[in-house]
Amino acid sequence: MEEKIRTAGDNYEAVTHRVNVRVLYADTDAMGVVYYANYLRYFETGRMELFRSLGITLESPEIEGFVFPAAEAHCRYLASARADDLLTVETTLDTENRASLRFDYRVFREGGELLATGHTLHACVEKEGRVTRTPKALRERLDRACAFVSRPRLPRE
Amino acid sequence: MEEKIRTAGDNYEAVTHRVNVRVLYADTDAMGVVYYANYLRYFETGRMELFRSLGITLESPEIEGFVFPAAEAHCRYLASARADDLLTVETTLDTENRASLRFDYRVFREGGELLATGHTLHACVEKEGRVTRTPKALRERLDRACAFVSRPRLPRE
Amino acid sequence: MEEKIRTAGDNYEAVTHRVNVRVLYADTDAMGVVYYANYLRYFETGRMELFRSLGITLESPEIEGFVFPAAEAHCRYLASARADDLLTVETTLDTENRASLRFDYRVFREGGELLATGHTLHACVEKEGRVTRTPKALRERLDRACAFVSRPRLPRE
Amino acid sequence: MEEKIRTAGDNYEAVTHRVNVRVLYADTDAMGVVYYANYLRYFETGRMELFRSLGITLESPEIEGFVFPAAEAHCRYLASARADDLLTVETTLDTENRASLRFDYRVFREGGELLATGHTLHACVEKEGRVTRTPKALRERLDRACAFVSRPRLPRE
Repeated sequence: MEEKIRTAGDNYEAVTHRVNVRVLYADTDAMGVVYYANYLRYFETGRMELFRSLGITLESPEIEGFVFPAAEAHCRYLASARADDLLTVETTLDTENRASLRFDYRVFREGGELLATGHTLHACVEKEGRVTRTPKALRERLDRACAFVSRPRLPRE
Repeated sequence: MEEKIRTAGDNYEAVTHRVNVRVLYADTDAMGVVYYANYLRYFETGRMELFRSLGITLESPEIEGFVFPAAEAHCRYLASARADDLLTVETTLDTENRASLRFDYRVFREGGELLATGHTLHACVEKEGRVTRTPKALRERLDRACAFVSRPRLPRE
Repeated sequence: MEEKIRTAGDNYEAVTHRVNVRVLYADTDAMGVVYYANYLRYFETGRMELFRSLGITLESPEIEGFVFPAAEAHCRYLASARADDLLTVETTLDTENRASLRFDYRVFREGGELLATGHTLHACVEKEGRVTRTPKALRERLDRACAFVSRPRLPRE
Repeated sequence: MEEKIRTAGDNYEAVTHRVNVRVLYADTDAMGVVYYANYLRYFETGRMELFRSLGITLESPEIEGFVFPAAEAHCRYLASARADDLLTVETTLDTENRASLRFDYRVFREGGELLATGHTLHACVEKEGRVTRTPKALRERLDRACAFVSRPRLPRE
């Protein structure tokens, strides 16, 4: 159900991860399809599970004392998802970005139909509220994770 | 749009308040009606606005240092609400209950159709996590608000 | 991650199923814990996956033409869940109830702490809006699933 | 609480509308602030109330038989909103766009602090599922609403 993908390229370091999400009625609206805001919820599952696949969770010392609020979110909707659909959220972390965290997402329906693409940008904020650079320990952890990985820069939306 | 109602009775002190809520697509699901969990969201609007009508908000000194997590929630669904419906949430606070806070709710569609009834029970917890009695300052404030009010006990679900 | 449990008893037919749910930030609120309405969302995962474990999904012919709106929901909150917690939703379907569908739920944190209990009751409604009994084909499917199963009636809340 | 604003400019026809939204605990997350996806919910309130201010609701003949799913959503987060904050959602409809509906949003805290900006783009889809141009009756209604209005094009994000 979860799979971490590392593909080779030449000018871009990134980590890609896939996780499945089952669509609930709770996620849909009266148009019969997933409500547009809920893709941002799926994105959260994507980036949380990508981090977990790298051994980082909310309790990890690498991120203790920091939070990562969204600075920007974008989603393009290509096709609709319905209750009970099994989706795959593919999340790619751009590990070159030193100042903040950028994730790119693609959401597929079982079978491979691309439903949505998007990205989020996250600031790093100390618990006292001061915006800072990505913590060094997290950065090193990500670097180790990507040591042997590089991949062409994704076309940005 | 908001209205505080105090009705007279003989053995029960309560404050009742009404507030309107507009149903969003976000609240509905693929059955075409409001998703069942979202009535608990409407209940939150009800009790928050009842407190506001009594001059109590999250910043009020009467409740500083306390939070009021739900200990119990119940809802009975009688008829469906649809996107764009204008609902009225009628919230009644049982001011006799000294140990915790109990709210009773009735949700109506514009025109008066009763859609749902329910209640929530809230513990009082100090910010450090210790369960306690409803803070004295809040209790006194509620008592003053209800000084001249009494009303028959609502039939409990 | 999912497990179907059938326990033996003497006067009650039921099917129990367990599924894991990871708590998202999306599920929490500013008190730092899961927002109370979102347990009803977890309940949906529970009953949907219980049905799936019996081979019944939204596309199954047994339920085609019917929807099962909640008639009642109840939840008792015993302890808090936090972002990133791995929960187990244990769902029990009372297969003796012929007129409607009743599910009982228990939500545990990884490690076994009981966080919440609850139940939902669902009417069976034809797509045209008429309330009806549980469809015969679904009933027979549930009966087959429980043919050799019986279990003491759960203490009802 | 609601106010429709029409400002004069020279090369852009638009209608702007403001509506207040009270932040619920339901909208916040464990970081103590509004969860990022919920701004898209506030955006829905903005565009729904803008339409209502023009006399258009989900029941209006101008849009009967059509739905307007999001094709794109974008949000930039500048400052955080907390439970109980009173927000103003300012929504601007670009009435020059003939093929689809584009809304620009700005979300302010009471007092005027800008918290978020964003936009959504909506396709027009016939109930049978075919993408089409904005219905003529809706277009004419919007044109009449803006007959005497023009305003400089907003800086697009």
